[in-house]
Amino acid sequence: MTTTTSAPVAAPTPQEFGVGARVTLAVMRDDYVDVILGALRATDVSGLTVATDPVSTFVGGDEQSIVRFLVDLTGRAAASGAHVSATITFSRGCPGEVACSPTVARASEVPSVERVGRDALAQWALYPLSDAPSADHMRDIYAAIDHAKELGTFAGSEHFVTNLRGDLADVIATAAAGWVLVGRTVPHVTSHLTVSLNSPSVA
Amino acid sequence: MTTTTSAPVAAPTPQEFGVGARVTLAVMRDDYVDVILGALRATDVSGLTVATDPVSTFVGGDEQSIVRFLVDLTGRAAASGAHVSATITFSRGCPGEVACSPTVARASEVPSVERVGRDALAQWALYPLSDAPSADHMRDIYAAIDHAKELGTFAGSEHFVTNLRGDLADVIATAAAGWVLVGRTVPHVTSHLTVSLNSPSVA
Repeated sequence: MTTTTSAPVAAPTPQEFGVGARVTLAVMRDDYVDVILGALRATDVSGLTVATDPVSTFVGGDEQSIVRFLVDLTGRAAASGAHVSATITFSRGCPGEVACSPTVARASEVPSVERVGRDALAQWALYPLSDAPSADHMRDIYAAIDHAKELGTFAGSEHFVTNLRGDLADVIATAAAGWVLVGRTVPHVTSHLTVSLNSPSVA
Repeated sequence: MTTTTSAPVAAPTPQEFGVGARVTLAVMRDDYVDVILGALRATDVSGLTVATDPVSTFVGGDEQSIVRFLVDLTGRAAASGAHVSATITFSRGCPGEVACSPTVARASEVPSVERVGRDALAQWALYPLSDAPSADHMRDIYAAIDHAKELGTFAGSEHFVTNLRGDLADVIATAAAGWVLVGRTVPHVTSHLTVSLNSPSVA
């Protein structure tokens, strides 16, 4: 039997680790206020901290609940039939604006969510923000893009972004999966996704 | 007189260095298609490569021209009187989706643009993506936020983002300035800005 002088350190909670997202819903119709506020009111916020400001809605909590919230919220807005653009930022490892205390990564399960039967187009960027000597941010990004190809949502490469297309749930889950997977080795990771629903540009 | 066996290396052009931006304009009114396409058609694209896809518009060129384009485009959309949300991504140092060949930074002038007399709210995030041994991405972000305070657009810190408020031109120029300033020492830098115009949430 071995003994140790240091007490076991509890893994940080999602809140302590700054696991969260921001979403800006844009609804391109005259009744956008009713659609946006109606979707926000109807979406289940169990286990989450949710705060809406004039530019976006912050949602903090565990990865699975965040993904469920985002799929539900954007799906409800799109159910209005209006053209909807949702700008989503995932972040982990930096609890405040710039209070990046974590120096170790936090392993999480890849969120899974059921398909909702709604087609989405999106553009995605993933940012591993590692200052470690082993940092190789493009290696991590390539791995996440390979994961998107496995999921079937990869729809091509463009300047600065990866195009995604598929069921709304799969598209949001792809961006979240890359974020969680890179987050197993990099403490501070963000992922940006612009989702287009009911686009008149798509047949 | 000294001689050298290596030919002088020309600095990369903005295009070669992958200097560019993406913008998604969301206009929250029934006539959004006319407003968005009208703004895109009316905005001067001199010296720029512009390509619109179903999710966003890519604009490549020098920093000054990109900022002028973005201020003009978003200002024209807002001149409709509709509530407008613009999602902007600046990128440098990664010409393709993941083709990050540059290993040295590229110094550029901080873009300057005249005020347009239109108030904007925004949330801003800046990502220095350095793998160098000297990497300290939070040091670079702190410096950029200090710069926003000097410009007078800093409006507080939130989870994952910095709030900006001020003339539309100053708000966009703030995000571009942080991007260019960090870009003097870090090859690959992106900056994300969500701009809200004519918001009913603001008195």
